[in-house]
Amino acid sequence: MNNEFHPGDIVLCRHGNTDRSGTFITMRDGMATIKLDSGYNIGVSLDEICLVTRPDITSTSPVAVTQNEALPQLSIVSTGGTIASRIDYRTGAVTSQFDAEDIIRAIPRLVTIARYRARKLYTILSENMNPAIWKELAEAVFQEIRNGSSGIIVTHGTDTMAYSAAALSFMIDTPVPVIFVGSQRSADRPSSDNTINALCSASAAVSDLGEVVVVMHGTMSDDTCHIHRGTRVRKMHTSRRSAFESIGIPPIGRVSYPSLEVHLEPAAIRRGTQEPSLAASLEERCGLLHFYPGMPPEAFTSFSDYKGLIIAGTGLGHVSTLLIPTIKELVDDGTMVVMTSQCLHGRVCDRVYDTGRDLIKAGAIEGGDILPEVALVKQMWVLGNEKDPERAAVMMRSCLKGECGGRSL
Amino acid sequence: MNNEFHPGDIVLCRHGNTDRSGTFITMRDGMATIKLDSGYNIGVSLDEICLVTRPDITSTSPVAVTQNEALPQLSIVSTGGTIASRIDYRTGAVTSQFDAEDIIRAIPRLVTIARYRARKLYTILSENMNPAIWKELAEAVFQEIRNGSSGIIVTHGTDTMAYSAAALSFMIDTPVPVIFVGSQRSADRPSSDNTINALCSASAAVSDLGEVVVVMHGTMSDDTCHIHRGTRVRKMHTSRRSAFESIGIPPIGRVSYPSLEVHLEPAAIRRGTQEPSLAASLEERCGLLHFYPGMPPEAFTSFSDYKGLIIAGTGLGHVSTLLIPTIKELVDDGTMVVMTSQCLHGRVCDRVYDTGRDLIKAGAIEGGDILPEVALVKQMWVLGNEKDPERAAVMMRSCLKGECGGRSL
Repeated sequence: MNNEFHPGDIVLCRHGNTDRSGTFITMRDGMATIKLDSGYNIGVSLDEICLVTRPDITSTSPVAVTQNEALPQLSIVSTGGTIASRIDYRTGAVTSQFDAEDIIRAIPRLVTIARYRARKLYTILSENMNPAIWKELAEAVFQEIRNGSSGIIVTHGTDTMAYSAAALSFMIDTPVPVIFVGSQRSADRPSSDNTINALCSASAAVSDLGEVVVVMHGTMSDDTCHIHRGTRVRKMHTSRRSAFESIGIPPIGRVSYPSLEVHLEPAAIRRGTQEPSLAASLEERCGLLHFYPGMPPEAFTSFSDYKGLIIAGTGLGHVSTLLIPTIKELVDDGTMVVMTSQCLHGRVCDRVYDTGRDLIKAGAIEGGDILPEVALVKQMWVLGNEKDPERAAVMMRSCLKGECGGRSL
Repeated sequence: MNNEFHPGDIVLCRHGNTDRSGTFITMRDGMATIKLDSGYNIGVSLDEICLVTRPDITSTSPVAVTQNEALPQLSIVSTGGTIASRIDYRTGAVTSQFDAEDIIRAIPRLVTIARYRARKLYTILSENMNPAIWKELAEAVFQEIRNGSSGIIVTHGTDTMAYSAAALSFMIDTPVPVIFVGSQRSADRPSSDNTINALCSASAAVSDLGEVVVVMHGTMSDDTCHIHRGTRVRKMHTSRRSAFESIGIPPIGRVSYPSLEVHLEPAAIRRGTQEPSLAASLEERCGLLHFYPGMPPEAFTSFSDYKGLIIAGTGLGHVSTLLIPTIKELVDDGTMVVMTSQCLHGRVCDRVYDTGRDLIKAGAIEGGDILPEVALVKQMWVLGNEKDPERAAVMMRSCLKGECGGRSL
């Protein structure tokens, strides 16, 4: 243990040729580990650090949380998002040791919106999400709906949040809002979006909404969260707080901040419209492949025993003519092949050009204006719940949960 | 031959329950083939058609083209784009029987901008482009540069135009503008963008520009084409005329229409800055794989003997922890693995989270803010021209042709 610095001390340290401000975390291998304000950890020698302030550590100890029993009951299902995270000053890691009291202590205004019960399902980085976890998540959320919650908040890492929101959109019919929320920057960073996102998601969860959505920071300033339909949203920036965008339709609503007023567009499904139901089966042998010039037919070999394959083609939904016999073989062997576009915006139409018409002849299904990733999740769900290939193809072509049918320009 | 209608006749026909306007093309199997104004061909019986007008066919016969020898000399290299296409009234197909006189007859204003020599390289749908054709295209364009052209216009289908523009950006150093142009809607459609795109590309080709760019319709109205850097552009809509967008940086210029005034941003490389050179080798054993939740390690098997692999991961550049040993095996076997992000916007950073740090330990290279498709083309070029793995990795991390280094927010 080092005698000069305490974990949590705010320090200045020399790094490269500049002084940078950060937080002392621990000593490791004779070097001090400093968490810079940018969020990165660096190792520096002790003589390059000076103390700025020592926060009063008693102020971070637990306080009792009083919930208002007159307010609506929300459920918070946690999968490992950083929204209630706090920094562990021993390791410098951002941890999400999460329960209802943690999140309310971090964001006290939450108790003015609702009372909460929390359910910690997983603590994983969202790149490790998979269809098996989607099933457990859908079952947990459905149980909360059945138990009478007025809305469910699912905290989730942002990397695969859009995939999970699409998965739950297909797996669950819900009469109450199911809100996916996360944060792009962890709670220990001054620019963290965790407070605005948490408060906006709680406000959306007690609103008149009745479908699965993503609620995240929506603009370059701190005044709005957007409400995105779960089957129409995509993470479109690696680091920006307003990283999530609706594709093909505008956001179906917004929450103003700090007023927390919720505005729903006419397109948003209202509370109580759907009867609760759950169809949690997923066919996991489905894949997604993006076409590129020069792609050889062998690129399809990994998918030869798959039940389904989504192709993200170019333009209106094309691949090289050379690949079409391979796609026909897949279809003839019983794989459902669906064409989408790597353009992301706009509708697939394989009836205009020769390669497209040949793809339809080979048995590929046109994916309309569905996003490639959403098509993958939809295919897993369709093939998991409908074993007849003809009926499955009809379902794949239909709009089931608002995933297609956007304005074509 | 039908006695009532002539190919090219403008007709009204009953289709479904509505009257639709179109062009009579031919009789086939007792039915009239009508090209609707929407661009689609339909078959209708003769008693459902009535004649509207019969265009004076003599007006479409060839006219002599006089070029102004006082104007700068441009080269038009054609690969099969529809920009000079005309409808074949026998088959209803859009053909690109292309030479300089064809395009000037179609768009007479072109002769007020420059004089032209044309070179027909290919007539293919651009989804059939591949690295072998990129080499021939680069050689043809380089020859035109060497022959003293003031600028080169490459007509190209829109599907893979961005891939080809990126390829030529790496393969050629050019002192003059190399302009990729196409059209989203064929010349026979009232909403075709072929005239505005052709005129704007010619104007950009005689401007002060000195790099490889894409010039395409830029807004929802007909008043601007954008000039996109060849390594920063992506087709972002399947059908809209303003389908192309610069990603990571703003467009480097614009051409106003109908004034054809060219405005170049300070970031645009100016005419004469680069000495002409050509490095046309490409390593074709490079692939691109988009990660998705549930992707099994076997998805990488198609790439096991590849020289290079680009991964489009989630968020800051992640894949599931389960895939990292497979990626390490690829790297250990000599495949250069580069991480990019399927977010498209923003920078990869694998030093923040565990899975990212594990990817770096496994030997993956961070791709910065390069687009996944551009990373693929760059990797083909780097590995085609530099056999030493260490030096190739340094090149892959460097910004060679403006493909990286955008503003991070």
